[in-house]
Amino acid sequence: MSSTVISDIAQLVTNDPSLGDESPLGLVRDAAVVIEGDRVVWTGESSKAPPTDNRVDAGGRAVVPGFVDSHSHLVFAGDRTEEFNARMSGRPYSAGGIRTTVAATRAASDAELEANLTRHLAEALRQGTTTFETKSGYGLTTADEARALRLAARHTDEVTFLGAHIVAPEYAGDPAAYVDLVTGEMLDACAPHARWIDVFCEEGAFDGDQARAILTAGRAKGLHPRVHANQLTYGPGVRLAVELDAASADHCTHLGDTDVDALASGRTVATLLPGAEFSTRAEWPDARRLLDAGVTVALSTDCNPGSSFTSSVPFCVALAVRDMGMTPDEAVWSATAGGAAALRRTDIGRLTPGAYADLTLLDAPSHVHLAYRPGVPLVAGVWRRGVREV
Amino acid sequence: MSSTVISDIAQLVTNDPSLGDESPLGLVRDAAVVIEGDRVVWTGESSKAPPTDNRVDAGGRAVVPGFVDSHSHLVFAGDRTEEFNARMSGRPYSAGGIRTTVAATRAASDAELEANLTRHLAEALRQGTTTFETKSGYGLTTADEARALRLAARHTDEVTFLGAHIVAPEYAGDPAAYVDLVTGEMLDACAPHARWIDVFCEEGAFDGDQARAILTAGRAKGLHPRVHANQLTYGPGVRLAVELDAASADHCTHLGDTDVDALASGRTVATLLPGAEFSTRAEWPDARRLLDAGVTVALSTDCNPGSSFTSSVPFCVALAVRDMGMTPDEAVWSATAGGAAALRRTDIGRLTPGAYADLTLLDAPSHVHLAYRPGVPLVAGVWRRGVREV
Ligand SMILES: [Zn+2]
Ligand SMILES: [Zn+2]
Repeated sequence: MSSTVISDIAQLVTNDPSLGDESPLGLVRDAAVVIEGDRVVWTGESSKAPPTDNRVDAGGRAVVPGFVDSHSHLVFAGDRTEEFNARMSGRPYSAGGIRTTVAATRAASDAELEANLTRHLAEALRQGTTTFETKSGYGLTTADEARALRLAARHTDEVTFLGAHIVAPEYAGDPAAYVDLVTGEMLDACAPHARWIDVFCEEGAFDGDQARAILTAGRAKGLHPRVHANQLTYGPGVRLAVELDAASADHCTHLGDTDVDALASGRTVATLLPGAEFSTRAEWPDARRLLDAGVTVALSTDCNPGSSFTSSVPFCVALAVRDMGMTPDEAVWSATAGGAAALRRTDIGRLTPGAYADLTLLDAPSHVHLAYRPGVPLVAGVWRRGVREV
Repeated sequence: MSSTVISDIAQLVTNDPSLGDESPLGLVRDAAVVIEGDRVVWTGESSKAPPTDNRVDAGGRAVVPGFVDSHSHLVFAGDRTEEFNARMSGRPYSAGGIRTTVAATRAASDAELEANLTRHLAEALRQGTTTFETKSGYGLTTADEARALRLAARHTDEVTFLGAHIVAPEYAGDPAAYVDLVTGEMLDACAPHARWIDVFCEEGAFDGDQARAILTAGRAKGLHPRVHANQLTYGPGVRLAVELDAASADHCTHLGDTDVDALASGRTVATLLPGAEFSTRAEWPDARRLLDAGVTVALSTDCNPGSSFTSSVPFCVALAVRDMGMTPDEAVWSATAGGAAALRRTDIGRLTPGAYADLTLLDAPSHVHLAYRPGVPLVAGVWRRGVREV
């Protein structure tokens, strides 16, 4: 197995305090990383790097762990440009919301769905994302949900069953029957293709009792919970997530003190998704409050065609710093190690011996530029599993 | 002279209402553009395009005029990452502000300054910017200001003398003497290299009387005025700009009714620079109020290492829609035709016969995606003066 050193890294984010400056980012200056196969085998100062077969010169630029985007909705068809345009222009528009995308997704062929998914994943990779989670939730029938998960599983290990995204249109008059479907036949068909189960716990979607029934049923089939919680209103989602030891409570925009306390007491990560607040002109989640309470925070895109059609983790980092009270260091940590924690992974989101060789080379001397240079495409190179992809 | 058609454009923004759907954007669907040499010679529906020598297939994507970035500060050296990081992290930092960049710029060689400028221009071009204005203002001696303008003029026709950025450190005790220098020897040395003269009219920089003296002196030497006005506080800048028929009043963040009335009554463009408010966590300028009053609005980056280190016009478009009350259509117009108006140009910022062939091909079916997909690099191709550069 040949080895490669990436050397002359001005600043390397390892996310291992013991390797670097003892900050959470574990910053190493004048650093190098050695890759063998799909793994990192050595990290440290350039001058101390062991001999290798190949060498890549980072040219005095910064390297960060590949971004871990732990929340996206990429198995969909159709486009909601006109709905977005009308919303932002103050024009009336009879928006179907998620139902618009459900109709388009059901009507699409497997090939269309996979082409769309592949295109968005390539776009995310070009922006430095080396791990992504993605969900079903635009099928809402047993066959369409299972199809979405089967397609997603061809491209990532982090697949989430979100049959409980909204009540399927056909069950609008009988939500209880839809919960029965989701926890019964649909779950049976979907569980083999997924690692996670998720529920949109919100007024107008699923209440706390329904969410508990769905997540508990999923757990019995070997799926681990994560929850869309407290996005639009205060509600039971976050507390339920912690109670069920969900890997993550996602959104966390409307939190009471009991919610923050619950998160601080458990190991459920709070995943913040500023792209959604950006594209719906909503109130920002308060990352500072969570961090000050000791909660682990992840940052992710929520990439979806309705409420957050960005695939850019750097954009989310810039927003988190500008509007959510995070420092640049915290935001970069949350977009890498935080995302990994939200997926209960220790083999990604860090650049330490034994971790996957997932790295993003920035066209900048410091990771701080991800916030300092908002909107600018700063990704100069991406390695995934040791292979240079960008 | 060979001709090229760009065909199969799903949506073409021409900025000529008579060519398209009679909206200000002059949208044409299923469109084509024909280029000969450095000019557009024909625009219309694909099916009616005249025969050409060459053909490029836009593949059902959108084309917009190349962005016109009418306000940037790209002749500088040094980096202010640590100042930005401290500001956003709530840490004390003895920031030198503009003076930090002045010291670094004076110390840099011509080659260093030009390499930095060239790098940022290439970065802007990759993001769809085909025209940029840039300023001096980090030299603040006769020789350093003239040098900055000489270097800038190698790369753009839109060069602005901003000796009155701040009072030079050497003149801190005698601002009047610095104004004498700027309007005397420095102006004489700089005027041959510039088209425009600009003043930072603000508390702590130059007051209304000083600004008037500087702009009037510049006009007498053949430079046309533009003004950094009403950025941090209410002040006389905007009214002065209109009174002197400045091409643009830039920033316009703090406006009274008399300022808005002045802008509406004259032909001075209000150039809004949301990157600055983003990166300093400041209050947004109210684009809606200006547009509703009938003011011509431009959007630009203000790219500079202190307060707005973004070169991304698409990012500014997304912010303007999210936070400044602009519709996606208005924001795209302001970033193209608006920028052209702020430079008093009619040969750029539009795709009509006779205009320069400056085009940006988006990896999206509609110009609305510039706001709908924030942070995502959407530029798939750039032509400048008829030559494909990206
Ligand atoms: Zn979601
Ligand atoms: Zn400026």
